[in-house]
Amino acid sequence: MSPPIVTLLTDFGEADGYTGILKGVILAIAPEARIVDLSHQIPPQDITAGALVLRSAAPYFPADTIHVAIVDPGVGSARHAIAIRTRHGTFIGPDNGVLSLAVGPAADAHVREISNPAWLRPDRSNTFHGRDIFAPAAGHLAAGADFDECGPSRSRFEELLLPAWHEVPGGEIAGEILYRDRFGNLVTNLDDAALARFRHSRVSVSIRGIHVRGLVSSYAAARDGELLAIMNSWNLLEIARKNGSAADELGAGPGTPLTVRGASESE
Amino acid sequence: MSPPIVTLLTDFGEADGYTGILKGVILAIAPEARIVDLSHQIPPQDITAGALVLRSAAPYFPADTIHVAIVDPGVGSARHAIAIRTRHGTFIGPDNGVLSLAVGPAADAHVREISNPAWLRPDRSNTFHGRDIFAPAAGHLAAGADFDECGPSRSRFEELLLPAWHEVPGGEIAGEILYRDRFGNLVTNLDDAALARFRHSRVSVSIRGIHVRGLVSSYAAARDGELLAIMNSWNLLEIARKNGSAADELGAGPGTPLTVRGASESE
Amino acid sequence: MSPPIVTLLTDFGEADGYTGILKGVILAIAPEARIVDLSHQIPPQDITAGALVLRSAAPYFPADTIHVAIVDPGVGSARHAIAIRTRHGTFIGPDNGVLSLAVGPAADAHVREISNPAWLRPDRSNTFHGRDIFAPAAGHLAAGADFDECGPSRSRFEELLLPAWHEVPGGEIAGEILYRDRFGNLVTNLDDAALARFRHSRVSVSIRGIHVRGLVSSYAAARDGELLAIMNSWNLLEIARKNGSAADELGAGPGTPLTVRGASESE
Repeated sequence: MSPPIVTLLTDFGEADGYTGILKGVILAIAPEARIVDLSHQIPPQDITAGALVLRSAAPYFPADTIHVAIVDPGVGSARHAIAIRTRHGTFIGPDNGVLSLAVGPAADAHVREISNPAWLRPDRSNTFHGRDIFAPAAGHLAAGADFDECGPSRSRFEELLLPAWHEVPGGEIAGEILYRDRFGNLVTNLDDAALARFRHSRVSVSIRGIHVRGLVSSYAAARDGELLAIMNSWNLLEIARKNGSAADELGAGPGTPLTVRGASESE
Repeated sequence: MSPPIVTLLTDFGEADGYTGILKGVILAIAPEARIVDLSHQIPPQDITAGALVLRSAAPYFPADTIHVAIVDPGVGSARHAIAIRTRHGTFIGPDNGVLSLAVGPAADAHVREISNPAWLRPDRSNTFHGRDIFAPAAGHLAAGADFDECGPSRSRFEELLLPAWHEVPGGEIAGEILYRDRFGNLVTNLDDAALARFRHSRVSVSIRGIHVRGLVSSYAAARDGELLAIMNSWNLLEIARKNGSAADELGAGPGTPLTVRGASESE
Repeated sequence: MSPPIVTLLTDFGEADGYTGILKGVILAIAPEARIVDLSHQIPPQDITAGALVLRSAAPYFPADTIHVAIVDPGVGSARHAIAIRTRHGTFIGPDNGVLSLAVGPAADAHVREISNPAWLRPDRSNTFHGRDIFAPAAGHLAAGADFDECGPSRSRFEELLLPAWHEVPGGEIAGEILYRDRFGNLVTNLDDAALARFRHSRVSVSIRGIHVRGLVSSYAAARDGELLAIMNSWNLLEIARKNGSAADELGAGPGTPLTVRGASESE
């Protein structure tokens, strides 16, 4: 059996050594663990962005993977440190919603508070729970500790509610931007179900007063500098600019509204 | 025998989790693989920069290493996904030239299309072949699959032609900038062969109307803020500025021309 | 026994493939080594920043870890390449002080020059000792070579002197900023000993004409946009701005002076 994978997702950046400290703590406890960075460049304290990136990546890892996600504006406050075990992975982080999109339905999840005094660093800080609580817990679970050793069972965990798309009179769909990636691509909250009623070639997306017509099937199908709409690798509608930044061109980002309609044949 | 190394080079950046997905896909197929990041900060869709960085790094890895390079402006178009086996490594990526500088002479290379339906993700996208084609292929080869399983043999692969230096009347050598590194150092296409005719102490480099005289043997030999010329760790002539950015000072980058001559003793 | 960990700290950035080359060289010599990045984003040639980050992270790794730190403005000059063995780790890098804060008291350290001709790359450059000297040494030590094989013993190593805090008339403490992290948090040279004379709730910090009153126990205890003072995870006084950059707001960075006093009850 292969040693377990531990993934790390944080908003720490990579400059200051904090992510290296997490790895030292984990490897000191579980020398065989294989550590994989998902991202350390989540925008500072952006729980939604962290939750979206974790949801996009976790399904590609084996089910015995331990995913640690630390985007934690409430570090040092009363929010709990939790571990959630599901059939598709174990998730560790603050109980603020950052884990919830990847975890999925609460009914399938076993939740524990992380408070085992034998696991926590004795001199733990109020500023760096990644080092003092989350990394030790990941290390102990990776080293084979039983999930129940984390701490007392909890009945629920904080769930992040993404803004839902909805129908508006006239057959349009209203949605919004959820995420801006580093290329300036704009990921919306519109999935296959939202767009199922439209023929892809006849879709018209309106955002910031601009109309983008038709869904392309690949970035290569668009012309340089052109705005395009595409179902992306997260299976969400994305507004992109070929070889450029749609976010900059449109002045758009998370929260920007958009509408989609099916253009008539004569348009 | 040690498990194989898989290196990754992309223009994905490290913010959005895409590189973590590649690693999850590879490790789910080849749990023992050791994954090494070469760079995920290749300028978006800059095939030449990707090819140069891959060529600079691949020789330092064992010959059984699998190098995955994804700089892929044509993703979703008709370009092929290929794997190339050589005596010094196996290379996986789009057939657009990004692999070719590291691969070297075509005569030594065995080329296969990557199209084994048992390897590709069944729901593969037109936007993320890294996840759906290249990472699975790297995983299967790392797990011990035979190279021939990739797909049908191909007789050739796309080769990137770097601009060549040439002699100009009067004994000068004309070249150009190939690459700008993150410090603003400017790497040229002039190698030892181009400069063999000159005494290093008497070389004079002209770029953007500025003359840099003499090759220094180390950065430490120059004064703060001074422009210098040096044979760099890629064995190419580099124009640098001590503790600064030559690219910014000269307004130069890939494609900027330069000339080199041997200054006479009396200059 | 687990294979040894090799940590890497450099100012190379992650764009140009240099860090991948270090890993290739190490793994070609020590295939079982587990490599962990501490940071490759130390500000170029900032020995103090590198030394501080290394000191902050090294204690969390097992004592048989090999730490490689390359911030090396003198590469190619007469400065030596050294390895230092201590009871808490082995340290490899240029002898310019970058190792010294993590190494600690010289009395506990065994120092060797790295000059074993069997280890160094035969074609070694004057520009990339990471590849040609430091990575090979780390690889050989990770593969089990005896520490004495590095090269001749040395009686001392370069020690970095951090600016010390001191008392000023009137009972104030004068210190300065040592480090700016990527969030714009400002880490000072004031430790628990410096602040022991004050009640935390009554501390008043003056920097750039601004007064910050009281130490908070967590970032969560401050209001958005508020400047705060806190003992941070390095056990040093830090000036931060909740959800913002204290460095930008104050126009402060390494070297900026500050004073601390105990405010009277009536203030």
